[in-house]
Amino acid sequence: MTNDFKPYYAVIFTSTQNEIIEGYADMADKMEHLAKQQPGFLGMESARDGIGITVSYWETVEAINNWKQQTEHLQAQQKGRQDWYSWYKVRICKVEREYEFLRNQES
Amino acid sequence: MTNDFKPYYAVIFTSTQNEIIEGYADMADKMEHLAKQQPGFLGMESARDGIGITVSYWETVEAINNWKQQTEHLQAQQKGRQDWYSWYKVRICKVEREYEFLRNQES
Repeated sequence: MTNDFKPYYAVIFTSTQNEIIEGYADMADKMEHLAKQQPGFLGMESARDGIGITVSYWETVEAINNWKQQTEHLQAQQKGRQDWYSWYKVRICKVEREYEFLRNQES
Repeated sequence: MTNDFKPYYAVIFTSTQNEIIEGYADMADKMEHLAKQQPGFLGMESARDGIGITVSYWETVEAINNWKQQTEHLQAQQKGRQDWYSWYKVRICKVEREYEFLRNQES
């Protein structure tokens, strides 16, 4: 087995929301749709119960910076700070190693 | 402002579960309790709706490797593959940059 893993990048976005989140779901859908169209986008995973965790995956740091500066995304970020989030934290990470488990479908 | 950010590490654990997850919640509590006692542990965030995402934070890669090899944790991992998870993926990441938003409590 050759070790040909190519590092990529993850953005870990953790957040807590305000009680009133009018318009949030629509915007989240829109931003997910938009992110997927960005150059260098690799994937996205999201879950919320109490705390929300969204992790998006990108080929390069440049791709992350471009997405952060994307016009409609900038507007969404502003709206998020204004209305939806009580707290959030963003971590930009280099994925250095990974492994996966998939259950045998026969069992 | 000095730029004195010290990189640390994140383990992104994403998973989907089987329908029967007897014993899972107890084990998850136990593992969280145990992780917090490990040298180099910095924090943990977890959410599940459909997909589960748990991110744990560590000072070094060595701390992550030690936790992975911890005896009771090894047993939990085995049980997870045997009974609870239909799929999981583990990504070991270096956190290179971070920023945070906290709502002004007066507003």
